[in-house]
Amino acid sequence: MSKKVAVILSGCGVYDGAEIYESVITLLRLDQRGAQVQCFAPNIAQLHVINHLTGEEMPESRNVLVESARIVRGEIKDIREADAEDFDALIIPGGYGSAKNLSNFAIEGTGCTVQPDVLALTEAFAEAGKPVGLICISPALAAKIYGPGVTCTIGNDADTATALDKMGATHQECAVSDIVEDKARKLVSTPAYMLAQSISEAAAGINKLVDRVLELTHENDA
Amino acid sequence: MSKKVAVILSGCGVYDGAEIYESVITLLRLDQRGAQVQCFAPNIAQLHVINHLTGEEMPESRNVLVESARIVRGEIKDIREADAEDFDALIIPGGYGSAKNLSNFAIEGTGCTVQPDVLALTEAFAEAGKPVGLICISPALAAKIYGPGVTCTIGNDADTATALDKMGATHQECAVSDIVEDKARKLVSTPAYMLAQSISEAAAGINKLVDRVLELTHENDA
Repeated sequence: MSKKVAVILSGCGVYDGAEIYESVITLLRLDQRGAQVQCFAPNIAQLHVINHLTGEEMPESRNVLVESARIVRGEIKDIREADAEDFDALIIPGGYGSAKNLSNFAIEGTGCTVQPDVLALTEAFAEAGKPVGLICISPALAAKIYGPGVTCTIGNDADTATALDKMGATHQECAVSDIVEDKARKLVSTPAYMLAQSISEAAAGINKLVDRVLELTHENDA
Repeated sequence: MSKKVAVILSGCGVYDGAEIYESVITLLRLDQRGAQVQCFAPNIAQLHVINHLTGEEMPESRNVLVESARIVRGEIKDIREADAEDFDALIIPGGYGSAKNLSNFAIEGTGCTVQPDVLALTEAFAEAGKPVGLICISPALAAKIYGPGVTCTIGNDADTATALDKMGATHQECAVSDIVEDKARKLVSTPAYMLAQSISEAAAGINKLVDRVLELTHENDA
């Protein structure tokens, strides 16, 4: 029986949206493993638009859902249409979009909040005991979704790890090719481009995360 | 000895730029096979900007180089800086950007021309006998680069195949998981999203193309 997985994107491009390598590697592995995938994104304006060639802000406005649609050839829905009951698992790739559009962690740090539609959906997966995979900087959302005591990783960046701990998470160091699992919560995380020096390195950890998230869905089959 | 491969991108998103899945799968496979990669794109305005959620044109202007930079985390150069002498091979992923920004095939059909900087670089690879990989709709450039008699594939779309033949190419039908090779010219092509029904299907043919292009570079080692 094919598993149904929801993926939340946060725009299109590492500096103001979803990290594209991480997003595509996630979708490729899910498809290669026979999962049925539906992508979602919040229908809101991006925090800002970054010129990815220069790193500078551009004086324009773009929509997170519309730009996310670029990655997935238009096959995406407004996150308000998502219902956790329709899916077996959820994965959120990284990129600054996770800290700028899905939450305001990039601005507010430990005082951040999660975008309301994103929080509602992720909490529904958590409450249903369905496995969730958080990639790169997306574990910054973990304490907001699961509450204090949740274990996750963003690799080994000391400042970010300390921020996660302050928010109530228990940060665990992790190599780029590996994953950290909070068994009680069925939450899997991997550092990806928090640490990766190459696209293959990112793929090693993401493939392991996708495989483990799919394995965990079988625990809910009984 | 690590092989050096140039990749030309044509924007960021299938409907007005480079197809993102094809681009990332190409870059992932190249990295997994140990190749050194440098991406390039023309520093020109996109033909237009398409809302990938609705398919409609948006009243704004975007630059091909700046948008291509989103795919590759900023690691890209103006194609005018590219010198075929610095590389062992060249690969061009597909997406409408190949037919709208790298050439005007989408508008002019068989009467199309290739963007001058793109033509100069691709011709230099052809003249040097260095292997080239063309993915999806990018083989529409083949007759312009190599002249009459070049063999390539865009899958099995009758209208597009006829157009390629009229331009002087010899179109050969090809399954999504396979490649067509013009041995005399060291040109390899694969249909990818001209035929693919899923990201895994696209990956099957693209991985084969990348592997064959890298193999062909060894013929030039002697």
